[in-house]
Amino acid sequence: MVSRNPHMAKLKAGYLFPEINKRKRAFLEKNPDAKLISLGIGDTTQPLEKHIAYSLTQAAFGLGTPEGYSGYGPEQGQPVLRERIAEKLYRNRIHSDDIFISDGSKCDIGRLQLLFGSEVSIAVQDPVYPVYVDTSIMMGQQEIIYMNCSPENNFFPDLSKLPRTDLIYFCSPNNPTGATANRAQLEQLVSFAKENKSILIFDAAYSMYIQDPTIPKTIYEIPGADEIAIELGSFSKMAGFTGVRLGWTVVPAKLEFEDGSLVKRDWDRIVSTCFNGASNISQIGGIGALDELGMAEMQNMVSGYLWNARKLRDLFVELGYPVVGGDNAPYVWVNFGEPSWDVFESLLCGAQVVATPGSGFGGAGEGFMRFSAFNSAKNTEEAVVRLRKHLTATKEVARV
Amino acid sequence: MVSRNPHMAKLKAGYLFPEINKRKRAFLEKNPDAKLISLGIGDTTQPLEKHIAYSLTQAAFGLGTPEGYSGYGPEQGQPVLRERIAEKLYRNRIHSDDIFISDGSKCDIGRLQLLFGSEVSIAVQDPVYPVYVDTSIMMGQQEIIYMNCSPENNFFPDLSKLPRTDLIYFCSPNNPTGATANRAQLEQLVSFAKENKSILIFDAAYSMYIQDPTIPKTIYEIPGADEIAIELGSFSKMAGFTGVRLGWTVVPAKLEFEDGSLVKRDWDRIVSTCFNGASNISQIGGIGALDELGMAEMQNMVSGYLWNARKLRDLFVELGYPVVGGDNAPYVWVNFGEPSWDVFESLLCGAQVVATPGSGFGGAGEGFMRFSAFNSAKNTEEAVVRLRKHLTATKEVARV
Repeated sequence: MVSRNPHMAKLKAGYLFPEINKRKRAFLEKNPDAKLISLGIGDTTQPLEKHIAYSLTQAAFGLGTPEGYSGYGPEQGQPVLRERIAEKLYRNRIHSDDIFISDGSKCDIGRLQLLFGSEVSIAVQDPVYPVYVDTSIMMGQQEIIYMNCSPENNFFPDLSKLPRTDLIYFCSPNNPTGATANRAQLEQLVSFAKENKSILIFDAAYSMYIQDPTIPKTIYEIPGADEIAIELGSFSKMAGFTGVRLGWTVVPAKLEFEDGSLVKRDWDRIVSTCFNGASNISQIGGIGALDELGMAEMQNMVSGYLWNARKLRDLFVELGYPVVGGDNAPYVWVNFGEPSWDVFESLLCGAQVVATPGSGFGGAGEGFMRFSAFNSAKNTEEAVVRLRKHLTATKEVARV
Repeated sequence: MVSRNPHMAKLKAGYLFPEINKRKRAFLEKNPDAKLISLGIGDTTQPLEKHIAYSLTQAAFGLGTPEGYSGYGPEQGQPVLRERIAEKLYRNRIHSDDIFISDGSKCDIGRLQLLFGSEVSIAVQDPVYPVYVDTSIMMGQQEIIYMNCSPENNFFPDLSKLPRTDLIYFCSPNNPTGATANRAQLEQLVSFAKENKSILIFDAAYSMYIQDPTIPKTIYEIPGADEIAIELGSFSKMAGFTGVRLGWTVVPAKLEFEDGSLVKRDWDRIVSTCFNGASNISQIGGIGALDELGMAEMQNMVSGYLWNARKLRDLFVELGYPVVGGDNAPYVWVNFGEPSWDVFESLLCGAQVVATPGSGFGGAGEGFMRFSAFNSAKNTEEAVVRLRKHLTATKEVARV
């Protein structure tokens, strides 16, 4: 018989969101009339803006006409979309040829494992978006270094204490913490990768949420980054395309392996062999999102979610909890100083609000909760009222 | 520095379609007024049928409304789509829980490599769709057995001569040959996999083209197949979704690894970790394609392409060439008995028709050409006129 892939057996069960759903269901069975508000999952909830929705609609309609029909496109993506990303999001710092359109970052993270193979060592932030680690384990990678990100280091890892790894995954604005690395920190990170001859995989899925003009929106604002960094981008959180599926990965032509061969050439081969391009409809929607009207609409949508984030952040600051995120990110990371799952239960039962236990993102997340801004303004306001009432009443005083 | 993944270096350059394009360009430079007709690439060319296009359009439009908006869906696909595939395409032989929606078979073939890992041995048909082999090599699989499919064995491999492998890839109706295995052959194949405790990966991307009612449209029509077979399905060639991106993979709950663990459980984990669901627009389009109107439209589109296939087949039969395919498949596989690239040049220069050299699909394809039916009826008719004239004039007499 066929043996089970031993790497699959090494994966821990993906228990976080299933466990949250289980507990929600149990609560709703006992309290069928409860009106839960979910600030749990990082999933967009608001309808697409008009012009962007219209672009998608036109693309879909066009497929029924001889002029608008298209079959397989280039696996690397439609040239117009690649050019528009280069121009609008990278100010042509990056050549459109180095931009590969995907059906989302999560999928490209999976394909990155095929690119690098099973022998590479990696470093990830802790707490961390679980997909970097899980896909690496699936691939058989053995050496995983966790870079602690906590209040003690202001949520930026102490690079001087880190061993060299082949790959460094770094997400900023961060999921789950909402912390955003500033220019000086990103310069450190690029230098560190250069000195170690590592490849930095920079996850910029939330870059559109950066409001502070001094914070770089892409790693390529740091000089020399194009020699060492791959960047992941996504329309999910900037255009509300979580369901539509559209993202991209930048693999600069300057990036080389030890033998002098181009990383980009192998990536191109991976993409051409294991992928068939993002949906033509989604790509045309992305082109619409990147014209003048679409850019304004994305900024508008992002502002709406950031308004929610600000409301949540202000609440916890007011109540005296240590808080990070929520200013340049759609996540607010709150230190409750108590076991995360206890806080989860308390908020669920006491305020009918669902948040995500920080411990689900790694050991360094214990004691924290992640609040997501991806809800309507109305629900967020209602959640704030309930949380204020509940937390004040139970006198859960913050640890400072 | 980071070492190049050694498996990537083992891949041969994907030269077939780039080489075809290079030769086309060279010809057009010398003959700028030539009107080439491409019967080369297996890519749909005709606009989507009305109701299916309308389903996609409605889905896209709906995303701009509170009622129609959706974010992340289940990675496994929308329940309604899974249920409709189970009902309409499998007559509920397969449970909808065992059907995993994807953004296309090519992408799922890549993910199958992650599922099985680097230690499995595989068998593939020769000639063969290159993606099975290329993705296996990327993953580091070493043992690849080629199952000769030629006129001598009527394009069905002599299983008695084959060694055991962990996986057997089998595509029917076949790309590139257009040959379709009959019930008795599929029964042999299932028995062979059972005896060897192999897993069969059955690629049924072209099953909608099967017109002969005695030929099974899915491997699960063969009793016991659900204990040993994974099946790949696709909307690309049945609904014209090559650009829209929608497919599925069936992993039956009965399929087990040697240690008794469920293959389906690991597949579910792969899909949840490296994938985020097919586009919600594509999925709603797929649901539309599988209602009564949509099914009739798909049948209509398939009939159109099969009409082209029949015209091409009839031509080569008339001219005395040995031919397979074109009756239950959109490909016509013609034995010219001369080096494939010589025939390619002759057809390009003499008839301004582009076909695909059979040798590009493996050693057993040398001497053959693949003609694709994915064009308009008008272009196909024109190609038939030109081919008849050219082949008669040059007296390229068929080998029998």
